[in-house]
Amino acid sequence: MKRVDLNADMGESYGIYRLGDDEGLLEFVSSASIACGFHGGDPMVMRKTLRLALLRGVCIGAHPSFLDREGFGRREIRLGREELESTILYQLGALEGMARSEGCEMKYVKPHGAMNTMACKDEEMARVVVGAVKVYDSDLRLLVPLGSCLESAGEEAGMVVVREIFADRAYGKDGHLVPRYEEGALIEDVSQATDQVLEILGNEERLVGSVCVHGDGVHALDLVRCLSEVLSREGYEKVGLDRL
Amino acid sequence: MKRVDLNADMGESYGIYRLGDDEGLLEFVSSASIACGFHGGDPMVMRKTLRLALLRGVCIGAHPSFLDREGFGRREIRLGREELESTILYQLGALEGMARSEGCEMKYVKPHGAMNTMACKDEEMARVVVGAVKVYDSDLRLLVPLGSCLESAGEEAGMVVVREIFADRAYGKDGHLVPRYEEGALIEDVSQATDQVLEILGNEERLVGSVCVHGDGVHALDLVRCLSEVLSREGYEKVGLDRL
Amino acid sequence: MKRVDLNADMGESYGIYRLGDDEGLLEFVSSASIACGFHGGDPMVMRKTLRLALLRGVCIGAHPSFLDREGFGRREIRLGREELESTILYQLGALEGMARSEGCEMKYVKPHGAMNTMACKDEEMARVVVGAVKVYDSDLRLLVPLGSCLESAGEEAGMVVVREIFADRAYGKDGHLVPRYEEGALIEDVSQATDQVLEILGNEERLVGSVCVHGDGVHALDLVRCLSEVLSREGYEKVGLDRL
Amino acid sequence: MKRVDLNADMGESYGIYRLGDDEGLLEFVSSASIACGFHGGDPMVMRKTLRLALLRGVCIGAHPSFLDREGFGRREIRLGREELESTILYQLGALEGMARSEGCEMKYVKPHGAMNTMACKDEEMARVVVGAVKVYDSDLRLLVPLGSCLESAGEEAGMVVVREIFADRAYGKDGHLVPRYEEGALIEDVSQATDQVLEILGNEERLVGSVCVHGDGVHALDLVRCLSEVLSREGYEKVGLDRL
Repeated sequence: MKRVDLNADMGESYGIYRLGDDEGLLEFVSSASIACGFHGGDPMVMRKTLRLALLRGVCIGAHPSFLDREGFGRREIRLGREELESTILYQLGALEGMARSEGCEMKYVKPHGAMNTMACKDEEMARVVVGAVKVYDSDLRLLVPLGSCLESAGEEAGMVVVREIFADRAYGKDGHLVPRYEEGALIEDVSQATDQVLEILGNEERLVGSVCVHGDGVHALDLVRCLSEVLSREGYEKVGLDRL
Repeated sequence: MKRVDLNADMGESYGIYRLGDDEGLLEFVSSASIACGFHGGDPMVMRKTLRLALLRGVCIGAHPSFLDREGFGRREIRLGREELESTILYQLGALEGMARSEGCEMKYVKPHGAMNTMACKDEEMARVVVGAVKVYDSDLRLLVPLGSCLESAGEEAGMVVVREIFADRAYGKDGHLVPRYEEGALIEDVSQATDQVLEILGNEERLVGSVCVHGDGVHALDLVRCLSEVLSREGYEKVGLDRL
Repeated sequence: MKRVDLNADMGESYGIYRLGDDEGLLEFVSSASIACGFHGGDPMVMRKTLRLALLRGVCIGAHPSFLDREGFGRREIRLGREELESTILYQLGALEGMARSEGCEMKYVKPHGAMNTMACKDEEMARVVVGAVKVYDSDLRLLVPLGSCLESAGEEAGMVVVREIFADRAYGKDGHLVPRYEEGALIEDVSQATDQVLEILGNEERLVGSVCVHGDGVHALDLVRCLSEVLSREGYEKVGLDRL
Repeated sequence: MKRVDLNADMGESYGIYRLGDDEGLLEFVSSASIACGFHGGDPMVMRKTLRLALLRGVCIGAHPSFLDREGFGRREIRLGREELESTILYQLGALEGMARSEGCEMKYVKPHGAMNTMACKDEEMARVVVGAVKVYDSDLRLLVPLGSCLESAGEEAGMVVVREIFADRAYGKDGHLVPRYEEGALIEDVSQATDQVLEILGNEERLVGSVCVHGDGVHALDLVRCLSEVLSREGYEKVGLDRL
């Protein structure tokens, strides 16, 4: 049986502010990338999210970001090597500490927002990000976009790399993401999204291990529910990132 | 040979801002309570401080605080139980993660500022603080003021408790700290400070394991150097908190 | 014709996070207390809120708070006199500067959350808060809870004081708010709320100038719409705080 | 008599953290660019700095920045037009409100750190920065580096522009700043610095109105004292930016 992971970003609420339907999503995803308090989340939110994920048996990963609450981690910020490493180590530690105290384990890392998009295009930065994760714990898995510098840096470092595709984003014929500013970049139609996912997954050469659904999309819950059903019907076993 | 620890708060610089002479103090202390980014410190500062401490063979502890950079963690903030616990767990995780990645171990916890003073007087709050540390790692030691609610809560919880006295603060005949607002509360004379430390340490019943020097005092470096010499001359072996 | 103001807190969204239906509420209120970025709001949100309020002809006030985004300004924090004053002056300036650049005027001040509740019970603190507003601009009005220390401090300082009642909170026979922890403290039934408002407003001795609706309540929009209709039907003219 | 202004950045301390010798510098400068709490400064620090400046009769300007305390406003952050404008308006308002309440007037604006260097090279961004200042108060002066996009955007907008040179930075034969990474970019020798200042000021075509001394330099106080003397000896009248 073919295995696939379904992941979503989680724990991005902050103080009084709610974001995303974590409880709803956790019924369907197999892995949760949990914000570490730098772009979203705070110690209370992180702990609640960890508890919910544990309850649902969902695999837990860290979703570290630039320190940027105002811009939700989407602002490009250039950090020096030491600063970038330290920023990541701090967040991994914070999430793992809370996870362990709740009786669960942090299994993977997926950078958030601008830290992710910048590292995907910048080999040097990708190596720094991967290096920080590796020095923290070389058994952690890296959840990275297919075909990115993070993917190659992860492989180069000998880490276990899981490639993800985005269920709600269009991919061109060349296999690359259609840029956000182009028409049709976002897929809002649920069946169009699931069709594309099945097509890419069916392509054996591509080695996609995980499908990402953005939790703040309007149809996030519909999409993740539907994807879950379709993947099961098509003979995929949905497993957490740690079981791929 | 009698053992005693000499501790100071460290890593309280922040971004471009420098605070305290960590490098100087680390030549003389045996334990360093490292800020975790909530009242002072940031990921870069924490990492540098850990490296310096490792280099000097100094025992490392976490110095968690309320989230209060503007007030340096000295503002009294009332948090609910869950919030207080989560705040502590987050900071312990962050420091330990960085420590491990630098090849050293976090051995103890000492709450900072208002979190410390409030918990010292409030049994309920002391239990929450101690409970959070215990759930994180029951092998961590607690560094607490002699005679405080943190001391009793730590003992009640079965944790290893190390009692500290403050080298630069006057103690009354009743053995309690002279309140800050009273005349003579602060000891600025180095030999007066060392005399008092020796007297209290000499009192076998009191079980003091550690002497704290505040790193931001004017004479901090003089005091810690002098204390280090005097303790050695008087037959004390200076050891880290983990070796008491 | 009797005049009354209908006010709500606004502009409490932050970055990507949405809070309250400001656009909806602005159709019905006559005054908007706008967050200044310390508990909620940020420069972008403040500017948008000011524009919306200007468009609707709604009177604008500042809603300053302790610096506490994590706790939404609801955490009690003890500040020294200088600190408290400076905190308020900063926020008044920030809002007024933005207001002026959008072509509207800041007319009043209403402290938020813990800053409000603490000052309502503490004469000394109330005087500091009122003093800061007066030194900023003695023509600003103060929007204060009926019977609070803020009310008396405002009168003592010779400021124009507007007393408010809370539409969604129960008042006892003694005219005081029923504490939140008592049963029946929150009024969720819209007609019960409007009945109580009319009864209190009808009591000439009480001099209530404004009715507050909390924008984050579940029925906030229903309540404000209904109140608006009922007040009009009962012969009240709804006017902004500056026209009372 | 030829007039020249001598300016320095001020009020960049934060909470417990001290930065720069504001009191010392204020004896010699004629204009003070005061941090607004986004990269340095906080409401208390701003107020104290305003009071000191008022006491010394020093002209007051705002020194707004990206929101970046960790990076002291030196991190490049790309903001959208609305965000950048709002960020500036907020800070101008905050400083002006405090200034007015202390009985002094804000006369000019000088962007800080990365906001300054980015706008100096980017025409579009320079126009947004200048536009925000103009919409706030078209009588404010702009303090800008000689030959920058901020200079041209300010002139284009019809604002009063004051050009500054940096006393502690080397200028090449082409009149441009030697980049920081090149050898000799920083001038540490006080007489070399004053010589260069006199030479550039002597060049009538260049229209330099102000000389900037960085307050955090090692020799800042020596340099500003010496510059003050030399300028006086050479027949310059030192005046605030508002009197140029």
